[in-house]
Amino acid sequence: MALIQTPVKGMQDFLPADMALRQHVLGLIRDTYGRYGFSQIGTPYMEHIGNLTGKNGGENEKLIFKVEKRGRELEKSLQKVRQSEDLRADEAGTELADSALRYDLTVPLCRYYSNHKNELPTPFKALQIGDVFRADRPQKGRFRQFTQCDIDIIGDASVMAEIELIAATSEALHRIFAEVGVSGFTVHVGDRRILRAMAKSAGFEEDTFDEVFIILDKMDKIGLDGVTQELIHSGYSEESVEKYVGFFHEFRENPDQDPASFIRKACADCIEEDALKDLTMILSTVRAMISNDITLKFDPTLVRGMSYYTGTIFEISIDHYSFSIAGGGRYDRMVGKFCGQDAPACGFSIGFERIVTILRDLGWKDQGESLKKAYLVDQKSASGRIGEVFSLAAKERAQGICVVVQPLKKNAKFQVETLEKEGFTQIRKVFGDTPLA
Amino acid sequence: MALIQTPVKGMQDFLPADMALRQHVLGLIRDTYGRYGFSQIGTPYMEHIGNLTGKNGGENEKLIFKVEKRGRELEKSLQKVRQSEDLRADEAGTELADSALRYDLTVPLCRYYSNHKNELPTPFKALQIGDVFRADRPQKGRFRQFTQCDIDIIGDASVMAEIELIAATSEALHRIFAEVGVSGFTVHVGDRRILRAMAKSAGFEEDTFDEVFIILDKMDKIGLDGVTQELIHSGYSEESVEKYVGFFHEFRENPDQDPASFIRKACADCIEEDALKDLTMILSTVRAMISNDITLKFDPTLVRGMSYYTGTIFEISIDHYSFSIAGGGRYDRMVGKFCGQDAPACGFSIGFERIVTILRDLGWKDQGESLKKAYLVDQKSASGRIGEVFSLAAKERAQGICVVVQPLKKNAKFQVETLEKEGFTQIRKVFGDTPLA
Repeated sequence: MALIQTPVKGMQDFLPADMALRQHVLGLIRDTYGRYGFSQIGTPYMEHIGNLTGKNGGENEKLIFKVEKRGRELEKSLQKVRQSEDLRADEAGTELADSALRYDLTVPLCRYYSNHKNELPTPFKALQIGDVFRADRPQKGRFRQFTQCDIDIIGDASVMAEIELIAATSEALHRIFAEVGVSGFTVHVGDRRILRAMAKSAGFEEDTFDEVFIILDKMDKIGLDGVTQELIHSGYSEESVEKYVGFFHEFRENPDQDPASFIRKACADCIEEDALKDLTMILSTVRAMISNDITLKFDPTLVRGMSYYTGTIFEISIDHYSFSIAGGGRYDRMVGKFCGQDAPACGFSIGFERIVTILRDLGWKDQGESLKKAYLVDQKSASGRIGEVFSLAAKERAQGICVVVQPLKKNAKFQVETLEKEGFTQIRKVFGDTPLA
Repeated sequence: MALIQTPVKGMQDFLPADMALRQHVLGLIRDTYGRYGFSQIGTPYMEHIGNLTGKNGGENEKLIFKVEKRGRELEKSLQKVRQSEDLRADEAGTELADSALRYDLTVPLCRYYSNHKNELPTPFKALQIGDVFRADRPQKGRFRQFTQCDIDIIGDASVMAEIELIAATSEALHRIFAEVGVSGFTVHVGDRRILRAMAKSAGFEEDTFDEVFIILDKMDKIGLDGVTQELIHSGYSEESVEKYVGFFHEFRENPDQDPASFIRKACADCIEEDALKDLTMILSTVRAMISNDITLKFDPTLVRGMSYYTGTIFEISIDHYSFSIAGGGRYDRMVGKFCGQDAPACGFSIGFERIVTILRDLGWKDQGESLKKAYLVDQKSASGRIGEVFSLAAKERAQGICVVVQPLKKNAKFQVETLEKEGFTQIRKVFGDTPLA
């Protein structure tokens, strides 16, 4: 059977220049988060299939890559599948699998924390850099395997966690984009508790909140009028919808008003005072920590897709681009699903692929390269001098210089041009009589 | 369903100290190989299933993790599996899968090179650092997901490729182990062409070579007498076995003899003169490049498992340990399987997991850490001062200091001790009246 040259659908091969960019950005992320005291950890790419189909992943669960059982276990499951003709394809698929590729880093983190909590400090500040997998429809900037960079703080119920996460991520992005002359980010801060209070105050029933928020989340695409129509179309009372949408109209007309006053006006009857205190503290403290070119604002329409969020939620968008490049929030009730006991938790995830796509499109160039030398050895006249050339190369490499030794090719001109393109500035042809010392 | 806390069988969670060690070693590897002009590339964790079951992976093909098809494709394959009761479990498994997790980095590299050869220089020097997956029986130091670090040179048919690979890998290992005071490696060099010439000269038929080499490869475990018995037991003529084993006895009695003379004595009738020239050149040139505490020797018994090797093969062992920590060789006929046209290729792979296991067992400690400071904020008296503390932290972080800000806990003594264990040397409790400036 002929072998296939292209990568699996939706997955990427990285050329040396792509990889240099990725490594450079990861270096800045590691360094910035290191200064905030985040420790890097690692988890496997595979998880038990039950951990990934337990409704913690929302829509992502539909996109998982399942990994087959092997040996006797596979035989047993095959028998079961053959005997149960009424098993749906996705059920049969789950029966035949014992594990699956992770679709995010949050579920693995919660498993990891539950498994190791006695060996970890409290609060625990984790940095994860790793690939995740989703069988999504591929499109520009969206891949089936992609890198995520997450920071999470587990065990700190106070807003200090949110403050650290937002400040650290803002600074990391600021450093990354400063190199290509891009500044101007907006940090959007919301709160699931405020979102719920506003929905409650408008008259929605609690068991409809998730659906209401999914519709509200489409505002970027369909506008406030679209949201209104879709809510009414979904059968909610006109009175509730009108009151609800009215909040956002009111906020839009006066976006610089004090967030706490706005929220009190909108839903004083339903709001927890703590949520307001937290929001105020986060906004004022982070403002004093981050660069002036970063806008920080309360966004009452911010939803964030995952239903596991319990408190503050946040997102960072880059000005002049229509998408967010980082997002996260507080999820205080997820660790408990693994270890039986809840632990306060809060995380922020950087959209790494989007960032490197923007940087590449803006023409990022590797600046930090060391001196690069090449020796091109003529194999006819200088094959007896290979030892001499390699000894010299060894000495230069010990000084940190990048040195390559290659056979001189017939088309020497093209060989030299190619090396120059790769950044080699000292290229020397070695013949039988070329002095080297 | 209850969620499972432990990782998938045979896979590892990495605690912060594990991860610091891994990142440190990877840093040394990247830096060393960078000086030799290797460029890092990346390939996906998944490959088309046909690429991984094409007999390029030897025994590893039995250990692959298969990834299920999805949607309509899965439905179609399930129907086929249900209708063909005689399909064996592994055949059904392949039918239901469209991709699989890679078991090494060599097959993906050959696919990658074929796919991108017009965008890559010749010779192309690639560094790959990535995880591979094998459903092997887990045991100490052997995992089902593990990191490999491979360097490969594609497009250089000369021994300069072997020289670069061996020198670079020897130096990388030398730097890694020097930090824990371990020196003393042995680089074993052999050649598939010499191995074949000796077998031919002894009278074995060419189509039995692979089996003969698999038996010879067990010498570390069963000794030369064990190899003799197993060859005879497998039905080979006593005359051939005696002559064959005689070569190794003769070499063992006089291991410092000139390799070329030994080989000529053993199989002058069958050996290609180029193989001897290459071996001599590699041994003398590499000797002049590497540290004195590294032994470099010809090893006529070296086999290396994979049958795709075509020329030089090599392995590095660490003295006082019974296993190799790096291995590789020349494989000139594998790229052709993907692009239809052969390209000379040669690679060296570092056994990363074994190395970090040894370093951890030897008590490796992170030396290069920056100053670490902690502010523990009393939430009762100092909650109004959080902004002040975070602003100070921001200033110190800008200087490269690692700073954490946490709520002061009731058990402050334990909190301080934990931080001290993590390397924090300046720990300050912040109350309402603590001066900070």
